[in-house]
Amino acid sequence: MARSYYAGIDIGGTKIYVVITDSKGAIIASARKKSKAERGFATVMERVHSCVSEACDMIGIATADITVAGVGAPSPILPNGVAVSAANMGWRKVPLVGKLSSLLGCPVYAENDCNAGTYGEYCLGPGKDAKLLVGLFMGTGLGGGIVVDGKLTSGVNFMGAELGHMTISRGGRICGCGKKGCLEAYASKTGMGYKFKEEILCNKRESILVELTGGVYDNVKSSILKKAWLAKDEVTVETLTEAAEYLGDGVGSIITMLAPDMVVIGGGVFEALGRQLLPIVRRTAKEATYPVASFRDTKICLASLGDNAVALGALEYAKSRFAANGAVG
Amino acid sequence: MARSYYAGIDIGGTKIYVVITDSKGAIIASARKKSKAERGFATVMERVHSCVSEACDMIGIATADITVAGVGAPSPILPNGVAVSAANMGWRKVPLVGKLSSLLGCPVYAENDCNAGTYGEYCLGPGKDAKLLVGLFMGTGLGGGIVVDGKLTSGVNFMGAELGHMTISRGGRICGCGKKGCLEAYASKTGMGYKFKEEILCNKRESILVELTGGVYDNVKSSILKKAWLAKDEVTVETLTEAAEYLGDGVGSIITMLAPDMVVIGGGVFEALGRQLLPIVRRTAKEATYPVASFRDTKICLASLGDNAVALGALEYAKSRFAANGAVG
Repeated sequence: MARSYYAGIDIGGTKIYVVITDSKGAIIASARKKSKAERGFATVMERVHSCVSEACDMIGIATADITVAGVGAPSPILPNGVAVSAANMGWRKVPLVGKLSSLLGCPVYAENDCNAGTYGEYCLGPGKDAKLLVGLFMGTGLGGGIVVDGKLTSGVNFMGAELGHMTISRGGRICGCGKKGCLEAYASKTGMGYKFKEEILCNKRESILVELTGGVYDNVKSSILKKAWLAKDEVTVETLTEAAEYLGDGVGSIITMLAPDMVVIGGGVFEALGRQLLPIVRRTAKEATYPVASFRDTKICLASLGDNAVALGALEYAKSRFAANGAVG
Repeated sequence: MARSYYAGIDIGGTKIYVVITDSKGAIIASARKKSKAERGFATVMERVHSCVSEACDMIGIATADITVAGVGAPSPILPNGVAVSAANMGWRKVPLVGKLSSLLGCPVYAENDCNAGTYGEYCLGPGKDAKLLVGLFMGTGLGGGIVVDGKLTSGVNFMGAELGHMTISRGGRICGCGKKGCLEAYASKTGMGYKFKEEILCNKRESILVELTGGVYDNVKSSILKKAWLAKDEVTVETLTEAAEYLGDGVGSIITMLAPDMVVIGGGVFEALGRQLLPIVRRTAKEATYPVASFRDTKICLASLGDNAVALGALEYAKSRFAANGAVG
């Protein structure tokens, strides 16, 4: 019997990341490439193709040997495989699935990256038994996903679950999306950038971030945030604490509205500092949950798939779609 | 063949309202009574019983002739029929369904009042074809309900869908629930009370509300709000506009998070001034929806059942539960 291979593909504004798994789900190869998104959609697609080829080469197979591929990308994805809009990729209505399936020569399914990440935590992470699972991923932005009874849910137009863009502070900070007071404008590295600039540039406070970041505070690497936190840098601790408190307030709203079994929190910031920040999120979420509702019925825990979340989640999603459409290889 | 009768019961902090319907769903009798909630749970239950009896008397039937009764009450209701907590009734874990089914001698099912109201709009109102329907009801407070694929959804512990208690203004006004910055603290008659007092008592602004309310601004009757709005009373117009804008911001967050097909807005304030306030809600909701998401895919419309919403919605819910449990009469 021929062995089966699967590809999980994570397309981001900066990099493409591919994993190849065997029929047991173990990662047997992976590859990475810069996205070069500024060169346009066609270039990114070619780079995804060559990234998958590279990973296949490592284990001596061809892309045509892949049973099914799953793609996560920073855009709402329609059921026809069109990526609606990805600001950091410069995409507007691009035929993501159509293009990739013809390049790779295998069935391809795609999902929004944070939806994929949430689905991955449902299938492979702590969310396994959750009837209603919410995922939140804090990095440059704040993304979310909702899994109900084992299915990703993103509303009537497949564009919902944008949990980072709920209003948390009406009339507050301008968010990258153009709205005011979005949760993401506070609970993300972009949101932290505002506060770093306020404290360091306006209030002239000392911080080791000046040296560690070279003075660029907009999207500080999670590894640098961790270093500064562990060094007890006051500005960093205050800023991360505030971001975690805002996130907790958002989690409290989500519990009040949806009463999920579980909220899984991941993304670069929580991969670096999850153990430190999770208690802050829990405390604030408890304060922000409608008191009559039972806060303790919702588990709040850290995501488990780390860097592989989007690639593996997208692949699990693709497998489920592929199985629903016919026999899985 | 014997005719079939059904009872819908709306239990509120001030009044009990009962409708009797025939097998076609037409209301053939109704009755009203004060709740006298301050006398305790047992008294309220007896008053519900006598209110149902009165309505039955009007058409010459006995309560035992009722096939099934549905109850809406201002509390989360567990599947076992226990009402968890109703602040304005003084209830903590009372056996609502157990008590009423023994008093009435017929099967009884109960739901949270705003869940019931939303379900009523799904079954009998504009929400008929919605796959994902959200209901919002603005009165003394701001209640909500969520119907997914024809089923009320209130999370793992049946306590979710408390949409009025999502945070809309972190660190803002204290809400009646004890939290800060809840949507209800702005988008409800209680929220309007804050602003009326600020404008009339603190800022010494003139308003016909002084006369119309006798100086009590906490929970102004919707009919008085309507009178003052139509008289173009500045303080009233500003205050209602602000409440509608906050509600619109909440609706925008709900669309961003859940992308429902439809949001139905009702409750006393919108029964009185829905035509005037709905355009404000729509405009603000559009501004508050994540721009990439497609705002136009969600219809925002007025509820249609008016005063009967909770009683009829609870009854539809009871019928569906009764049908699922066995043959419906």
